[in-house]
Amino acid sequence: MQTKFSTKEEKEEYSICIHYLYKSTKNVNGKVLLLHEVFLYKHQPLFHALPITLFLSHFRSSSFFQPWPMTTCSADLAPLLGVNGTGAADYICSKFSDASYAVDNTYLLFSAYLVFSMQLGFAMLCAGSVRAKNTMNIMLTNVLDAATGGLFYYLFGFAFAFGSPSNGFIGRHNFALESIPSSSFDYSNFLYQWAFAIAAAGITSGSIAERTQFVAYLIYSSFLTGFVYPVVSHWFWATDGWASAFRTDDFLFGSGVIDFAGSGVVHIVGGVAGLWGAFIEGPRIGRFDHSGRSVALRGHSATLVVLGTFMLWFGWYGFNPGSFNKISSFYTSGNYYGQWSAVGRTAVTTTLAGCTAALTTLFCKRILTGHWNVTDVCNGLLGGFAAITSGCSVVEPWAAIICGFVAALVLIGCNKLAEKVKYDDPLEAAQLHGGCGAWGVIFTGLFASEKLVKQVYPGRPAKYGLFMGGGGKLFAAQIIQILVIVGWVSATMGTLFYFLHKFGLLRISVEDEMAGMDLTRHGGLAYVYHDEDESQKNGIQMRKIESFPTPPSV
Amino acid sequence: MQTKFSTKEEKEEYSICIHYLYKSTKNVNGKVLLLHEVFLYKHQPLFHALPITLFLSHFRSSSFFQPWPMTTCSADLAPLLGVNGTGAADYICSKFSDASYAVDNTYLLFSAYLVFSMQLGFAMLCAGSVRAKNTMNIMLTNVLDAATGGLFYYLFGFAFAFGSPSNGFIGRHNFALESIPSSSFDYSNFLYQWAFAIAAAGITSGSIAERTQFVAYLIYSSFLTGFVYPVVSHWFWATDGWASAFRTDDFLFGSGVIDFAGSGVVHIVGGVAGLWGAFIEGPRIGRFDHSGRSVALRGHSATLVVLGTFMLWFGWYGFNPGSFNKISSFYTSGNYYGQWSAVGRTAVTTTLAGCTAALTTLFCKRILTGHWNVTDVCNGLLGGFAAITSGCSVVEPWAAIICGFVAALVLIGCNKLAEKVKYDDPLEAAQLHGGCGAWGVIFTGLFASEKLVKQVYPGRPAKYGLFMGGGGKLFAAQIIQILVIVGWVSATMGTLFYFLHKFGLLRISVEDEMAGMDLTRHGGLAYVYHDEDESQKNGIQMRKIESFPTPPSV
Amino acid sequence: MQTKFSTKEEKEEYSICIHYLYKSTKNVNGKVLLLHEVFLYKHQPLFHALPITLFLSHFRSSSFFQPWPMTTCSADLAPLLGVNGTGAADYICSKFSDASYAVDNTYLLFSAYLVFSMQLGFAMLCAGSVRAKNTMNIMLTNVLDAATGGLFYYLFGFAFAFGSPSNGFIGRHNFALESIPSSSFDYSNFLYQWAFAIAAAGITSGSIAERTQFVAYLIYSSFLTGFVYPVVSHWFWATDGWASAFRTDDFLFGSGVIDFAGSGVVHIVGGVAGLWGAFIEGPRIGRFDHSGRSVALRGHSATLVVLGTFMLWFGWYGFNPGSFNKISSFYTSGNYYGQWSAVGRTAVTTTLAGCTAALTTLFCKRILTGHWNVTDVCNGLLGGFAAITSGCSVVEPWAAIICGFVAALVLIGCNKLAEKVKYDDPLEAAQLHGGCGAWGVIFTGLFASEKLVKQVYPGRPAKYGLFMGGGGKLFAAQIIQILVIVGWVSATMGTLFYFLHKFGLLRISVEDEMAGMDLTRHGGLAYVYHDEDESQKNGIQMRKIESFPTPPSV
Repeated sequence: MQTKFSTKEEKEEYSICIHYLYKSTKNVNGKVLLLHEVFLYKHQPLFHALPITLFLSHFRSSSFFQPWPMTTCSADLAPLLGVNGTGAADYICSKFSDASYAVDNTYLLFSAYLVFSMQLGFAMLCAGSVRAKNTMNIMLTNVLDAATGGLFYYLFGFAFAFGSPSNGFIGRHNFALESIPSSSFDYSNFLYQWAFAIAAAGITSGSIAERTQFVAYLIYSSFLTGFVYPVVSHWFWATDGWASAFRTDDFLFGSGVIDFAGSGVVHIVGGVAGLWGAFIEGPRIGRFDHSGRSVALRGHSATLVVLGTFMLWFGWYGFNPGSFNKISSFYTSGNYYGQWSAVGRTAVTTTLAGCTAALTTLFCKRILTGHWNVTDVCNGLLGGFAAITSGCSVVEPWAAIICGFVAALVLIGCNKLAEKVKYDDPLEAAQLHGGCGAWGVIFTGLFASEKLVKQVYPGRPAKYGLFMGGGGKLFAAQIIQILVIVGWVSATMGTLFYFLHKFGLLRISVEDEMAGMDLTRHGGLAYVYHDEDESQKNGIQMRKIESFPTPPSV
Repeated sequence: MQTKFSTKEEKEEYSICIHYLYKSTKNVNGKVLLLHEVFLYKHQPLFHALPITLFLSHFRSSSFFQPWPMTTCSADLAPLLGVNGTGAADYICSKFSDASYAVDNTYLLFSAYLVFSMQLGFAMLCAGSVRAKNTMNIMLTNVLDAATGGLFYYLFGFAFAFGSPSNGFIGRHNFALESIPSSSFDYSNFLYQWAFAIAAAGITSGSIAERTQFVAYLIYSSFLTGFVYPVVSHWFWATDGWASAFRTDDFLFGSGVIDFAGSGVVHIVGGVAGLWGAFIEGPRIGRFDHSGRSVALRGHSATLVVLGTFMLWFGWYGFNPGSFNKISSFYTSGNYYGQWSAVGRTAVTTTLAGCTAALTTLFCKRILTGHWNVTDVCNGLLGGFAAITSGCSVVEPWAAIICGFVAALVLIGCNKLAEKVKYDDPLEAAQLHGGCGAWGVIFTGLFASEKLVKQVYPGRPAKYGLFMGGGGKLFAAQIIQILVIVGWVSATMGTLFYFLHKFGLLRISVEDEMAGMDLTRHGGLAYVYHDEDESQKNGIQMRKIESFPTPPSV
Repeated sequence: MQTKFSTKEEKEEYSICIHYLYKSTKNVNGKVLLLHEVFLYKHQPLFHALPITLFLSHFRSSSFFQPWPMTTCSADLAPLLGVNGTGAADYICSKFSDASYAVDNTYLLFSAYLVFSMQLGFAMLCAGSVRAKNTMNIMLTNVLDAATGGLFYYLFGFAFAFGSPSNGFIGRHNFALESIPSSSFDYSNFLYQWAFAIAAAGITSGSIAERTQFVAYLIYSSFLTGFVYPVVSHWFWATDGWASAFRTDDFLFGSGVIDFAGSGVVHIVGGVAGLWGAFIEGPRIGRFDHSGRSVALRGHSATLVVLGTFMLWFGWYGFNPGSFNKISSFYTSGNYYGQWSAVGRTAVTTTLAGCTAALTTLFCKRILTGHWNVTDVCNGLLGGFAAITSGCSVVEPWAAIICGFVAALVLIGCNKLAEKVKYDDPLEAAQLHGGCGAWGVIFTGLFASEKLVKQVYPGRPAKYGLFMGGGGKLFAAQIIQILVIVGWVSATMGTLFYFLHKFGLLRISVEDEMAGMDLTRHGGLAYVYHDEDESQKNGIQMRKIESFPTPPSV
């Protein structure tokens, strides 16, 4: 390479680049190619006569940081095998390609199963957070989220979300998985995305629990998983979505939105939909007393809340690290550092954000209420997860701790605000997923690291965080994301809930609400600890409803 | 290739073949070998002078569709590497082989863990579906299914099922895993099959819940997991089972039975065993009143039912997609379409069948009973899964929807019939696993697709579905499967239950049944929400059994 | 090779070696390299003129059994590719290396998720085993174990445990994951180890349940996961820990300790810490009556106990087989037998030990108490798992059955002893994890197989079991492990609990204990099956605490 520099700055940049190349290899095993050797070697024909400027522009364009696709394998290997190397190179590379497919699909399918297990988490969290008389109702909605979601997302949801080529607003191919598998999508991708879609619907069901007609539920759930959510996921996740960081052209502030696993796409969507539903139908009877004071209507089982929270935590390891879709992509050939490492780092940032949020909530709530509250800690923990979901792959672990700390405060603040405006959300879903989700989107705009953004969004124009020296472009794009999601969900789901309300299809009657929906709509209570006939046979005539000594609400 | 066709039909068939080859590649990346190129290339020596008839017969024999085993890797690669290529080819191919083993075992082991988690699902589903007074009893049976199953399946169950070479009826090698690992089986295979064996026993325990002596339980469970079930699995799954679709010779109607993940082998076996047990010992006291009317004896916790159902759903992703055992097999080298894709498709068909069955049940039950019943929806969902289990890998997603729809109707019908004949099955296990399982076996005989059967059972004579143009051979084989399983399980388990009954070992006493088995046999009730001493200390003397207002049964 | 033997013994040993080589290949596919061929081939340059003595010493040194690292791939392959083969070999080998990283990280991450799910298991097991009035308290401690563990293990726990190079006693690098990923550790390693650390803390929380101040809990949990446990795991698991079997030099009796997945490192640590805590603060009020007789204070929900046990079983498949960290290492190139097989075998030994222990407990308890007790069976099962955890990878399946059988007896014995000395441990945690854990460590010293030790600890001096002909060196090392762990944990955690006790920070007041901590410290009871207002509205004035008829305690 020519090493005559035309300017001092050029020389400095060059030495930084070279330093970076060398630094990255310091822990490599002797046998393995060093990072800079890989670089030289891969670009050999170009390199020997490469002018400085070209080298730098090459480096700047980050092609170096890109995962090297398996498609170049054959072209790279053939000349190395000498004369007539093409056949052997094709053969060997096709086998490598097979291995990658096998590993990546194993990884993605098991991640999808984990995300699906979150539906169990939601069901238990919701069941535990409502009163015993509405347990069957809320659990049925959770089962049906998954079931209706399965059909509708199969028929058109997936097509709307990822049916490229699109107009940027909505996809329009692959209805009923028509051309699946293709080189872009396999069945595992569908399964993974379906598990995400039903998670969004699960969030909303929490907000409107204990007072919503079952029919309204069926209508909104289908509409949300079949249309509203897929459109949003198209915008931010499809390669041709108008605001997607996966676009290769410069669009939204020359950056696009980074919402890796969906603090915006999943959590804000579910939260805002719930907000409108709960707002339009108003609080549950008794939630605010005659003088307007807030009265806690405690859920009937803290055990179920903890069970649900742990299942959600477990499933989140599919949600966030799984969002890479592939694990076998390599960043630097022959090295220990590849996408597998980024996947692991994402699991770590997720863990740290949740842990920090849980601890912050524990101590804040202790100060505010005087006791150590386990259900609050569970909600804080989930708030931390909802927040880190946006930037989990592009921030360093230390930043995740900041993310979780602030998320806990955001949730406490949102809950205070909700009480003030007499907004009743049995699961705190709008506050948790909406509030902490929005914080998460902003957080990414502040703390996304340059190096990590370049790895995770290779060859894309995506910018990095304001506090990390990346300027305000990504931050601006993130703000835009919050605004358009709130706008879109309000326009669609808000309108839907409004009309359901207007036609008397949204809220149940006062009698039903007092008696509980399980008894009036779902064929009986969820729990029967002793049979009628049995107590009769034991000679006990008197029947009364038991009551635990309920502590005064906070 | 000579392209002179002797007949018009020959020419047409040829062009269809070629069209198929090309069509299959339309989404392939430029760099990757096209499907027809792979074909030409792999058969190069043969191909250049290949007469049309040979080409067609080659194509017809579907060798093209077969997964190419890694064993040919070295032979294929060596000539491509030129003179002295053998050493290098051996070396490279052995490494590919290692990678395949690592991926396949990861995939199979985690699938086995998922299938194991179904035991937790069963335990919770069963616990929630029985009355509180028998909770400990039913849960203990579930724990012991796994435990006795572990020992007996290790000692001889696995040998009976897969100890090839066999006489077609029962295996007889590998007792206590003697020659494991071998080139046929590794420890992961044993673990996976063990998880299946205990699932069958779990099904049966549901049918005979709330009235069976614990000793009877221990006896039947050992007999079922140690002998009855392994023999059936040998017939249909071992490579030398007399009716297995994995046989390479033409046997049962020149087809063999396709029961991929075991609608017959697992679900009918468990269901029919339960049917005999529950039939012989008769319904629970109070299940049918003096006038013969059905009285629902509701389970004590819908929450546990939903928890169990979701865990079973989660575990079914190990059960069905996991039944491939391997994920790294490739159908067309260098392409995106391999066994990984078939595994994903199987997860999708499973999901769609369950979802459709759940929705069908919801609406049917709403019409029949007037309310939205969550436990019925759960059972419907599981019925859909039990049905799709047979054909999950060889039907297209749209067919899975038909499968689930009919499964829901089958379950409702079986339950109606059970009420009519005064058959009492606390878990609806015989109806669900037996009835829907049988429908699933039939469904496969109707809807199995040619293309998919050829992929999943490569080089085997297995035929495809009646409605898919495959003629009636597979269908006939499937009917045979149902008949022989019902016959075998009746002859073995029916006889066992009959003798247990005859010797007074089957049913508990009336007193025990009224009081519940937990109190009389298992050392106390499952739930103690307040301690004896505590209520005393709080100055409350009166003690009575609480009673929830139980709604009138349907 | 020269085949002239200098002595008769040499000839015999040679023929044994050769026989072994051939024997190991009997099931290999024809195409694949035979084991002895691999051997010859790999050592070709050395082999042709190899004197017998060298061959034998080579064989004795077990280098043959070592996993062949991918780092030799390039050096091995290059000469095979002929002139100018280096470039191609580097390229191909770097891709194999990538594939290994992808598979291994997939395997390790999902194993880590499974181990994490044990925290859910612990939470449910603990909740079900305590009285209803302390449910929120114990669950909160389980949530916080994970959360505080996340922060502290990130900040310094991981550094103390694995921050090599160390002084043998404590690690001192990689605080806050500073140099992660490196060639030694990736994020997945941290996540996996974190999940282990919080498991240890979870064990201890069971021992001191129902009577410990929440603040004491926060203090001991941080100290245990942040310091005490990491130090122990450094000693026995880090490559430079003073007693680690991963050391390459001869240290502890020329063997080092084999504690593969941590019967000692995790279970004895957690158990002994719990022992001191429970011992210092004394039994719960009412646990032993005025005459000193033991009174069972039954847990409030057997359902939760079974749920927790199954989750722990599920998670143990991450704990034990996952402890290999890698699955793609091959023992004999091109063969079906590699680390994937050892991982599967470990899952099988784990299963068999647990199953045997469960069945042993069932029958023993039936004889001792007259009933079939599900919670006792659950504890027995977990005791079997705790015991096999040490030797799971280095013992044959039949030995695991012995391990489980004895573990059940050890647990029963420990529980008898605990009653005698009036030691109260609500979860039997010290007995189960301490007692069975210690048995497990000893068991490894007796039954570790030579062949398996050489595979799992390749190139290490680790000896094998006393009963397997390995002499007493490993056994002695194992005894040392028990002694130093008991000493270390007593010195640290015992002292901590003592001072907490001295300063009045350990035990709650009598009033709080009688009323339950949920009501006094955590804002209310865990369960609210009927609301205050509701019973009022239904016209029922009288409010009383319900009481189930509690059976007489055993």
